[in-house]
Amino acid sequence: MSAASSFGSCGSVLVTGASRGLGLQIVRSLASGDFSPGKIIATARDPDSAQELQTLAENHPNIHIITLDVVSQQSIDAAAKDAERLLQGDGLNCLINNAGINVLGDFQSTTADMMIQNFHTNAVAPLMITKALLPLLRRAASRGGAGGAGRMGVQRAAVVNMSSLLGSVELNWGENANSLKWIPYRTSKSALNMVSRCMAVDLESEGILCMALHPGWVRTDMGGPQAPLSAEESISSILSVIGGLSEKDHGSFLQYTGEPLLW
Amino acid sequence: MSAASSFGSCGSVLVTGASRGLGLQIVRSLASGDFSPGKIIATARDPDSAQELQTLAENHPNIHIITLDVVSQQSIDAAAKDAERLLQGDGLNCLINNAGINVLGDFQSTTADMMIQNFHTNAVAPLMITKALLPLLRRAASRGGAGGAGRMGVQRAAVVNMSSLLGSVELNWGENANSLKWIPYRTSKSALNMVSRCMAVDLESEGILCMALHPGWVRTDMGGPQAPLSAEESISSILSVIGGLSEKDHGSFLQYTGEPLLW
Repeated sequence: MSAASSFGSCGSVLVTGASRGLGLQIVRSLASGDFSPGKIIATARDPDSAQELQTLAENHPNIHIITLDVVSQQSIDAAAKDAERLLQGDGLNCLINNAGINVLGDFQSTTADMMIQNFHTNAVAPLMITKALLPLLRRAASRGGAGGAGRMGVQRAAVVNMSSLLGSVELNWGENANSLKWIPYRTSKSALNMVSRCMAVDLESEGILCMALHPGWVRTDMGGPQAPLSAEESISSILSVIGGLSEKDHGSFLQYTGEPLLW
Repeated sequence: MSAASSFGSCGSVLVTGASRGLGLQIVRSLASGDFSPGKIIATARDPDSAQELQTLAENHPNIHIITLDVVSQQSIDAAAKDAERLLQGDGLNCLINNAGINVLGDFQSTTADMMIQNFHTNAVAPLMITKALLPLLRRAASRGGAGGAGRMGVQRAAVVNMSSLLGSVELNWGENANSLKWIPYRTSKSALNMVSRCMAVDLESEGILCMALHPGWVRTDMGGPQAPLSAEESISSILSVIGGLSEKDHGSFLQYTGEPLLW
């Protein structure tokens, strides 16, 4: 089964931070697959300057671009209204909280403002966005999707939080730790992992699958040129994992390969 | 060995949030032990209103009260200067980042501001305080303390971050998760655990031990009346653990019993 085909029974996906990097590649791969979701809602802080995303949307009528500044509650509320209008009475099957930043700082240089800025974008925003989209996720979950109401997954309703291996406290030790001393980023992703787990606890009874995913180290603006994975490789693998999510993955923290990671 | 006696070779301890709860009990237990540290620096946001701490200090001349509002960098910098003056050329052997708050919020009620407020006090402040006190911790670490320069522990230099079992992502599942759905608090403590681990990575080469400690569920203003442990019981156990910290505990997350916790 190809990466995109697993989304064949997923009516709608919303991807945050879709103007570049992994978010853009998620939209591109979803749109170009044989089994593309009915609606791909791509959010960007400033759609007018998201040229690649605009071009992609011109060639794929199921891509809908909306404005979302993830650290603004006003913008989140407006985006939720835009999504509801676009979905025309349907629910949202899959929310991918992908937008993130890396506020570079080591022990010496990190300030309180840097910590808070990274935390807000990477850990708080996914929570606030999920809260705002909850009525749409609920609607999708309550209709059950292909496979029936008992099954969890993207055919029904799922929240995927783009985390990072760098958010694993356990793995922040030895060689892995010393090579990337990014305190604000690591802390924000650990926080996101807890947010993801809290969501999973709270939304389980509604049949909404929630999990955290490490996309691998990818050659994007954030990952840099020395990263081992291309965006295409990462996203192909990620979309296979997301497409195949089921009950057993609820509340989990997975690699792009589908292997579990320690918190 | 009694709890307090293990601090016999620890010249100085600084405890944040010492006006009440666990912080006050730490100061009380340290001061009343047979082997009390030479100097106990107790910080409070508003020392004038910290009556119990004031009374304690009147009876124990080795207690020194200083002002510290942990979310103010200006206050942190001033407190670091106060501590340096009090230590009169000596280093600081043990920093206990105890100050913390619980901004109560569940999935429905939590706002971005609540998340950020709890994160700032519980996770960012310990980092900024440790940075500000680093010259004093370094001074203590470089002098080696009892047992020689190779050994890590409170006789030399240690940073203890008061975390919580509720910050364990792994343990936030099942019955434990459903009973306490405190998103801002849980997230702040997960973040503190990563901060603690980052500190441990960065300060290891200087011989400064860093770790995170869960004090148990204690009958304080924060823990409530139904908690199983009295402040005395918790602190007696905690001080035994802190007093006995060594290399093997560097970068760890321990229960008040000394047992390791999953992140």
